[in-house]
Amino acid sequence: MTISQLATDKIESEGSALDALIEATAEDMTAVNAMILSRAESHVEIVPEIARYLIDAGGKRLRPMLTLASAHLLGDASGKQVNYAAAVEFMHNATLLHDDVVDESDMRRGKPAARKVWGNQASVLVGDFLLGQAFLMMVEAGELDALEVLSKAAAVIAEGEVLQLSKAGDPGTTDAEYMQIIGAKTAMLFEAATEVGAMAGGASGKLREAMAEYGRELGLAFQLVDDALDYGGADGSLGKNTGDDLREGKMTLPVILALSVASGIERQAVLDALGHAESGQTELAKVREIIDRHGTLKTTIERAEAHAEAAKAALAALPPTELRDLLADVADFCVSRVY
Amino acid sequence: MTISQLATDKIESEGSALDALIEATAEDMTAVNAMILSRAESHVEIVPEIARYLIDAGGKRLRPMLTLASAHLLGDASGKQVNYAAAVEFMHNATLLHDDVVDESDMRRGKPAARKVWGNQASVLVGDFLLGQAFLMMVEAGELDALEVLSKAAAVIAEGEVLQLSKAGDPGTTDAEYMQIIGAKTAMLFEAATEVGAMAGGASGKLREAMAEYGRELGLAFQLVDDALDYGGADGSLGKNTGDDLREGKMTLPVILALSVASGIERQAVLDALGHAESGQTELAKVREIIDRHGTLKTTIERAEAHAEAAKAALAALPPTELRDLLADVADFCVSRVY
Repeated sequence: MTISQLATDKIESEGSALDALIEATAEDMTAVNAMILSRAESHVEIVPEIARYLIDAGGKRLRPMLTLASAHLLGDASGKQVNYAAAVEFMHNATLLHDDVVDESDMRRGKPAARKVWGNQASVLVGDFLLGQAFLMMVEAGELDALEVLSKAAAVIAEGEVLQLSKAGDPGTTDAEYMQIIGAKTAMLFEAATEVGAMAGGASGKLREAMAEYGRELGLAFQLVDDALDYGGADGSLGKNTGDDLREGKMTLPVILALSVASGIERQAVLDALGHAESGQTELAKVREIIDRHGTLKTTIERAEAHAEAAKAALAALPPTELRDLLADVADFCVSRVY
Repeated sequence: MTISQLATDKIESEGSALDALIEATAEDMTAVNAMILSRAESHVEIVPEIARYLIDAGGKRLRPMLTLASAHLLGDASGKQVNYAAAVEFMHNATLLHDDVVDESDMRRGKPAARKVWGNQASVLVGDFLLGQAFLMMVEAGELDALEVLSKAAAVIAEGEVLQLSKAGDPGTTDAEYMQIIGAKTAMLFEAATEVGAMAGGASGKLREAMAEYGRELGLAFQLVDDALDYGGADGSLGKNTGDDLREGKMTLPVILALSVASGIERQAVLDALGHAESGQTELAKVREIIDRHGTLKTTIERAEAHAEAAKAALAALPPTELRDLLADVADFCVSRVY
């Protein structure tokens, strides 16, 4: 599917793929949500308060749904996917709590970030609690292979975040380093989510690897789109959800590619805005203009598309089912958000 | 052993129990240290930099040594204790990295805290990395029971830290709440360390439980002594390593007990110093005077002693060996630090 087709199909595909995924995973998801609620419990009041504040904040729960859908691709699933999906969501939320501390974010999912309400300290510690609970849910499922996938993911995600931090505001950050960062900080958890899901569905060998690849490619597409959206996405509307990366000095592909071909004056304009908390709409618009001049937002979106296509291609290893088609639609959906 | 005996034996017992433990675990510890080094590796430069800075900073590695010693109590150990000990040390160091961020500590083990050198952000993320690596080492050992012990511990430790945070500066904190906090934030990891060690040594049922109890009681004694030392320990020397808890508003037993019986004027003096970063030697000396007046440092030390005795009593379930005697000496050593 090309960009223009996607743009045309936007209204139908956007809602429907996600809605279809919600519907397809609804039964398992009831159990996952119950597990999430009960495992966020603690005799220490503030723990469930923070955990629920974040978890109930209206996240799409895309990752656990991917785990659940992956578990049913071959027919019957073992039931372990419920634990896995809840663990994946806890890991994701632990990462969000820590990311917001690291990025000094004020908002998350349209609400004040937990760290603004309860402080950085509690955010760090409750993140640790969720990570511990995630591992415990994995242990209870009793599969060492799946535990290995998740614990590797935990270490790789943290490494990716450290790499991103060390490259913050560094205009010399390369395309390859960027791909390494998003591969670790985002795609790793998508990959783990679909891989452990597939394992709960009895997949092994090539099928397991195919679902890991689907998740990895989908995660790359997802993050590329996120990073394009932070510069206004395809239609270039620079609203209130844009410019965070620029202000935080986060080196994302649109800027990295623009810097690699920018004139001296353009380069200076980008550097003047990058990593300055006070950069406003004027600076953002100027950077967006430079990005547009060199077409690097388009390149970013095209790369997202390519990874979504790779995700769909990975699905070819699986038996042709409605659920497989749905996962292909989800890949398109992840890219369609950019329009 | 009573307080006075301990004081008399101070010079001999202090060095010797720790030295004997180092000697008894030396062979395994070589493997543990190699594993620690290799698992702190990363293609992201700053990760091993921070990890090694902390890990090489001269910690006693008491917890991993306890794991190793516990593994040899019944004779042959499985070898898994090497992974377990390295995992325990990584968990401990992850906790330290996060604690220093939470407590805004400037120093750790006589050097500037990692967060002062690399920042809070990297400290949070490298802590997460170490936690992920700890779980991976546990997974590689392949025992779900031991993984369960460690993942429960991770969640409980974080809960304990949150509880401590929520009670910071709260003069209404009770003795029971304090015991709950130190049971979770400190004793839990000691317990996990000896329990998984014992499991690697083939212990199950009552023997496993006995070693868990030994670790738990030892951890309680250890933290009670730490908290007494922060008010100058038994000899009351208020040097540069004292007063942190007071300044941070950390509610520890000497102060909790003093507040419970203090006069109005005394209470006010404690509250004036508690949780104020600028509290200096004058305020500390005043609080110490109040503590001494009510004998609550002595009570704290006596309670540490009682838990060390309970730790030794737990060892009675085990076959009488030199190693068992050594672990009993270690319990005495943990208390002797206070003199």
